[in-house]
Amino acid sequence: MEQIKGYSYGDSALDKSPITLQDLDLLKKTLLWSKDDERYLNMAGKVLQDQTDQVLDLWYNYVGSNEHLLYYFTVDGKPDERYLAAVRERFKQWVLDLCNRPYDQAWLDYQYEIAKRHHATKKNKTDKVDSVPIIHFRYIVAFIYPITATIKDFLAKKGDSPQDVEGMHNAWFKAVTLTALLWCYPYVQQGEF
Amino acid sequence: MEQIKGYSYGDSALDKSPITLQDLDLLKKTLLWSKDDERYLNMAGKVLQDQTDQVLDLWYNYVGSNEHLLYYFTVDGKPDERYLAAVRERFKQWVLDLCNRPYDQAWLDYQYEIAKRHHATKKNKTDKVDSVPIIHFRYIVAFIYPITATIKDFLAKKGDSPQDVEGMHNAWFKAVTLTALLWCYPYVQQGEF
Repeated sequence: MEQIKGYSYGDSALDKSPITLQDLDLLKKTLLWSKDDERYLNMAGKVLQDQTDQVLDLWYNYVGSNEHLLYYFTVDGKPDERYLAAVRERFKQWVLDLCNRPYDQAWLDYQYEIAKRHHATKKNKTDKVDSVPIIHFRYIVAFIYPITATIKDFLAKKGDSPQDVEGMHNAWFKAVTLTALLWCYPYVQQGEF
Repeated sequence: MEQIKGYSYGDSALDKSPITLQDLDLLKKTLLWSKDDERYLNMAGKVLQDQTDQVLDLWYNYVGSNEHLLYYFTVDGKPDERYLAAVRERFKQWVLDLCNRPYDQAWLDYQYEIAKRHHATKKNKTDKVDSVPIIHFRYIVAFIYPITATIKDFLAKKGDSPQDVEGMHNAWFKAVTLTALLWCYPYVQQGEF
């Protein structure tokens, strides 16, 4: 597989997540997480494996048709195609990582890295672009909805039973909620996360 | 109807929301909000009207069986029943307000009030209790999942068609996501919301 630019999952140089594995366990409990969710996420990983381009087509079409979202990819008021393309490759990989990776320390550390890349801490640095300095907090959380709602049709495309599609979708919803909240860390005031 | 203690929806003494109606429009756009969602929320309001006690039974059972969540209602390490009961009445009303209220300035202002009541700004003040000082940010966002997943059975209880139940559930998911992110305002660093 071709190396994805800026994809540093598992890199030992990454900062350690401020969220511990114990914190993660309590978050999973809050999300009513079960072994079934892991099984369903792995199933979703197989179902989505060869559909990530179509998924990203849909998501990028959505972002592209919302000026207030496309804004976050602009340089001097114009969308930066190179920036959009680089993020797209990592976003595709994120879909698969969400489904296939164990949620361990390496996973936590990479969520922290992604968090900083949305926040002023590190936005634009990975792709060496001169875009706007931060993706505002509100859209990190708001994205839980479109990212969850739009995946269902893709999950249903491989002929799995309605129960399995529902199970995959439910696990995806939990996983996206968990990920989105972890990505908020740099935005939240000290001691309040 | 008996007055709900601390329920100050529409009170002109409330602080004005830092989120404008224009911000709200863009958030609704991000959530793919449509007139259908308003119709479905109103439908959900009718379906849930006489079920709010059962809904709260389920949610309180969930909180009560998770020590790390019940913690936020403790005084000196013990759950405060009076505090839990007071919040429960407002939580019931929130279910109906989410479905029935227009999302206008008064709605925004009351979301801001609720936000502060979760945050250290105002937690405990409404009910004059000496509980822990803040509900941590992570659980405000995490709650999007259980609050959305568990409502579906209640939405299905009045014999509406599967399409209508799905429509109500989808609109509920959007509304809960919107509400949860608005409740995060006091936690987020200046200028980053």
